[in-house]
Amino acid sequence: MKTSISQAALRAAIASVRAQGPLVHNITNYVVMNNSANALLAIGASPVMAHWVDEMEEMTAIAGALVINIGTLDTQWIEGMLAAGLAASRRGTPIVLDPVGAGATSQRTATAWELIRRCHPTIIRGNGSEIMALVNSDIRSKGVDSSATSHDALEAAKILALETGAVVVISGETDYITNGTRVHTVEGGHPIMTAVTGMGCTSTALVGAFAAVVADPMEAATAAMAVMSLAGERAAALARGNGSMQIHFLDELYRLKEADI
Amino acid sequence: MKTSISQAALRAAIASVRAQGPLVHNITNYVVMNNSANALLAIGASPVMAHWVDEMEEMTAIAGALVINIGTLDTQWIEGMLAAGLAASRRGTPIVLDPVGAGATSQRTATAWELIRRCHPTIIRGNGSEIMALVNSDIRSKGVDSSATSHDALEAAKILALETGAVVVISGETDYITNGTRVHTVEGGHPIMTAVTGMGCTSTALVGAFAAVVADPMEAATAAMAVMSLAGERAAALARGNGSMQIHFLDELYRLKEADI
Amino acid sequence: MKTSISQAALRAAIASVRAQGPLVHNITNYVVMNNSANALLAIGASPVMAHWVDEMEEMTAIAGALVINIGTLDTQWIEGMLAAGLAASRRGTPIVLDPVGAGATSQRTATAWELIRRCHPTIIRGNGSEIMALVNSDIRSKGVDSSATSHDALEAAKILALETGAVVVISGETDYITNGTRVHTVEGGHPIMTAVTGMGCTSTALVGAFAAVVADPMEAATAAMAVMSLAGERAAALARGNGSMQIHFLDELYRLKEADI
Repeated sequence: MKTSISQAALRAAIASVRAQGPLVHNITNYVVMNNSANALLAIGASPVMAHWVDEMEEMTAIAGALVINIGTLDTQWIEGMLAAGLAASRRGTPIVLDPVGAGATSQRTATAWELIRRCHPTIIRGNGSEIMALVNSDIRSKGVDSSATSHDALEAAKILALETGAVVVISGETDYITNGTRVHTVEGGHPIMTAVTGMGCTSTALVGAFAAVVADPMEAATAAMAVMSLAGERAAALARGNGSMQIHFLDELYRLKEADI
Repeated sequence: MKTSISQAALRAAIASVRAQGPLVHNITNYVVMNNSANALLAIGASPVMAHWVDEMEEMTAIAGALVINIGTLDTQWIEGMLAAGLAASRRGTPIVLDPVGAGATSQRTATAWELIRRCHPTIIRGNGSEIMALVNSDIRSKGVDSSATSHDALEAAKILALETGAVVVISGETDYITNGTRVHTVEGGHPIMTAVTGMGCTSTALVGAFAAVVADPMEAATAAMAVMSLAGERAAALARGNGSMQIHFLDELYRLKEADI
Repeated sequence: MKTSISQAALRAAIASVRAQGPLVHNITNYVVMNNSANALLAIGASPVMAHWVDEMEEMTAIAGALVINIGTLDTQWIEGMLAAGLAASRRGTPIVLDPVGAGATSQRTATAWELIRRCHPTIIRGNGSEIMALVNSDIRSKGVDSSATSHDALEAAKILALETGAVVVISGETDYITNGTRVHTVEGGHPIMTAVTGMGCTSTALVGAFAAVVADPMEAATAAMAVMSLAGERAAALARGNGSMQIHFLDELYRLKEADI
């Protein structure tokens, strides 16, 4: 794993998550809830999954970050996402948005944009296709997969960052993290990560944990992607297939020591 | 594993899934979403889980197959299932229905029949109890478990196939695949598969992947059940319990080579 | 593992679950459904997950126990929980309530109390914070984590048991099981269990399985917590992190023999 931020900054970020154990409020999709919760626990954060519109105000009030992931949308969940997003925005709580499948259907692209416009996410993380679809609505992705490389999408990410004020993260072979002017990169990981469902969603959840304790969103997002990449490399060396990859990945997150960096 | 279709046909089916990477649209239950998605990724297909009625038309338009599984039903999900099923039916996209728990409650039996009548599934896959309950509504199953053997249900499957025009798959110690006149079988697998939640649902998802790329539904369904059986046998040889069985099963699917057949 | 109940009683309880294979109806949260189902299968019970208000009457009629877990609440699910709880209460079917996150938001505390008042659960299982929040609504917990030790909460548990007529279980380093006058304990388990999401929810599901076949709720709940503790210790000895812990835990449940007690 190679990244733009210093080893000291990465170590400090990991230490902060462990020391503070931030509560990360996730409104995420059904497919990944278990893995996202376990990944957050593995790095020392405290996950809560809750989407009921009636409790969004109170839940947001105790959370260190809000993660919104639109992977399995419907009308009722959008209401919860907006209620939580507005409450978090009002409080200045960091919001991380994962526009899963933006471009796959026009409803997803529109929902992602409604959340961006009304809740002002601090960080937006997607794959290349999703980020490009948010900038150019003519692009149609195939489901939730990325057909674009992360590099292709970097220009789109810069435009999106400047337009929205969010730090934009594109995950791929090389991860790009940009605020529209500066660009951080993370290289590493392993191709088998793309055969495990919800790895992108997990990275979004980890971005939430780091955003809760690291003031600079560029640094928070880069640290999270670096941790994903490092744990992914180590897990891939042990995995026999995508089943064991999912388990080894959690184990490697759990075993990650600051001294390893 | 022993099956009715030729080794060449099975190899060709597996190669087609890998080569084409079909997008499989799943409206399935909360319990199995993660495993179904990982199983589809393991064989080289591309899963999307989406149920929002507003996006069913567009999602169906980009999918190679639609899988509807009624395991954790409610009114809102039934609306999504019908919208997707009608759109897929109109387009000629293969539809695979898993009538989970048919017979356990009259609402499940009725919902399965509403989906059958209105959406005309290409393939229906269930256990013996579920298939028998669809034919004879007096049969009550105990929850989602099969209390009937797959052989007992074969006559019911033939009746259901002739009545609906669907290929009907009964999974069990021996799997039966019938269009009402011809019968394919798959022997193999391992009893520990019944101790892993959602193995039936996973097989339905794989049937969807094969149905997207193999024109003959009898052959598609048989290939999927054969792959389940083969991966199940191999995983069972490595498993210490139902936890590791779930993981080894995904790994074995992932490692399956055409040369293994 | 050390517990208040006799080895003979524990062995008999495990044997009863295996022999009777009770159907356990779970209305539980999205995060843990897969693990709860696999844990129930591992000990020989038969899980069904169903929440649709229309089928609650029929589903409850065939179940040996009902488990209600409020981890990912919303209005529609509360309706299903109440419908199932009222039907089970009328039939005398044991009800186990897991008030996940009580105290984290006032809506969760209120929902837990509505379920208690209207459905009269046989057993309530929570962590220390949750049980204390049910007794003293001024206590606010941080999300779904326990910030109180289980011993601190024992007095609250006794009050709750006497007020509601339910057996109350507090899980923690030492588990306490009380009907307000008598107290059982279970010592054992391992700290890494707290890093696996939904271990508490899994224990609630197992309490449901034992409550379906053991007449005395004190004994049923204690047996379930003892089994959790034993499998947890054994799994922890094999685990490399929280990922493999989740898998080894299921394997150890699956491998548990009465002779091991």
